Amino acid sequence: MQLLKEMILPKGRVDSEDILKVDGFLNHQIDVKLLNEIGKEFKVRYKNESVTKILTIEASGIAVACIAAQYFEVPVIFAKKTESKNLDAENYESQVYSFTKDKYYKIRVSKRYLNSADHVLIIDDFLANGSAVLGLKEIVDQANAKLVGVGIVIEKGFQQGGNLLRDKGLRVDSLAIIKSMKPGNIVFESK
Amino acid sequence: MQLLKEMILPKGRVDSEDILKVDGFLNHQIDVKLLNEIGKEFKVRYKNESVTKILTIEASGIAVACIAAQYFEVPVIFAKKTESKNLDAENYESQVYSFTKDKYYKIRVSKRYLNSADHVLIIDDFLANGSAVLGLKEIVDQANAKLVGVGIVIEKGFQQGGNLLRDKGLRVDSLAIIKSMKPGNIVFESK
Repeated sequence: MQLLKEMILPKGRVDSEDILKVDGFLNHQIDVKLLNEIGKEFKVRYKNESVTKILTIEASGIAVACIAAQYFEVPVIFAKKTESKNLDAENYESQVYSFTKDKYYKIRVSKRYLNSADHVLIIDDFLANGSAVLGLKEIVDQANAKLVGVGIVIEKGFQQGGNLLRDKGLRVDSLAIIKSMKPGNIVFESK
Repeated sequence: MQLLKEMILPKGRVDSEDILKVDGFLNHQIDVKLLNEIGKEFKVRYKNESVTKILTIEASGIAVACIAAQYFEVPVIFAKKTESKNLDAENYESQVYSFTKDKYYKIRVSKRYLNSADHVLIIDDFLANGSAVLGLKEIVDQANAKLVGVGIVIEKGFQQGGNLLRDKGLRVDSLAIIKSMKPGNIVFESK
């Protein structure tokens, strides 16, 4: 997606070999106009699928998922990372490893909101090692729902997540795939 | 806001004296159509203010803030609760007490994204004791930005947050104010 790449190039900051900061428009300050274009693009790519729910994970996936959901006219569900009095007792649960925070955490979705009739599109801001998507996929599987695909804003193509998911037969649509990056130099896959 | 109240009454679940679960449409599964109406209503209420940024706090404030931001045509910033390698070193920081999680946590906003030229509208899903809004207000103050007002989806009017903020001279717009609640019975303020 050209518009997204044109935003990443001047505004993305590569701080080390594996950290790309896009907190100016995607995951701290949010450029809602850009997210609208991203949402439209996901809809174009999944226009032939009957998506009934968009599933994401707190926190930074929520923005992309909600803006995109307007074009699909379906509800969003975001998997919760933390214990809370507000959460139901009956949940689907799985485990995710966060490299940026260097820890494992549980994620949960209430059984009220996902079932075997659902066709689920997973949406997230980043795909790196694939751990978050695999955790969300496990929740979709527990609900016996159908996983239609995975919509990703930025895939770090030099990490294993994308291949891992595609090798499992999942449909993955990443709007920008980074082939390599170092401070001052971000190279995208041409596709 | 009538539409919101009509959603809370059948779908909100009062589990104890102070826990109102609205995870069917607001903070776990998200009804994006409802959020659009909420966003429009905030814009109507703040149409005479020149808002430059919408500030919220992760996680469940992000959905409301992003959908509302479409009507204001401004970026959203969400304060981060957790340490992360993705966060800048230079941040505004404050402290928030969460009653639902029963702990204090730091919140942070990068100094890159908020400054003295900004007119900030704080948006959040719930107002109870007011701790989150006061934490966000402190960040706005640290940036020497102007706090235009506080837009809240559901205010628990029987807790002290609303009065606390209004007594400090803050403008608070809550779209539904709950006067009292117990299982099976939710009563709204008439205003």
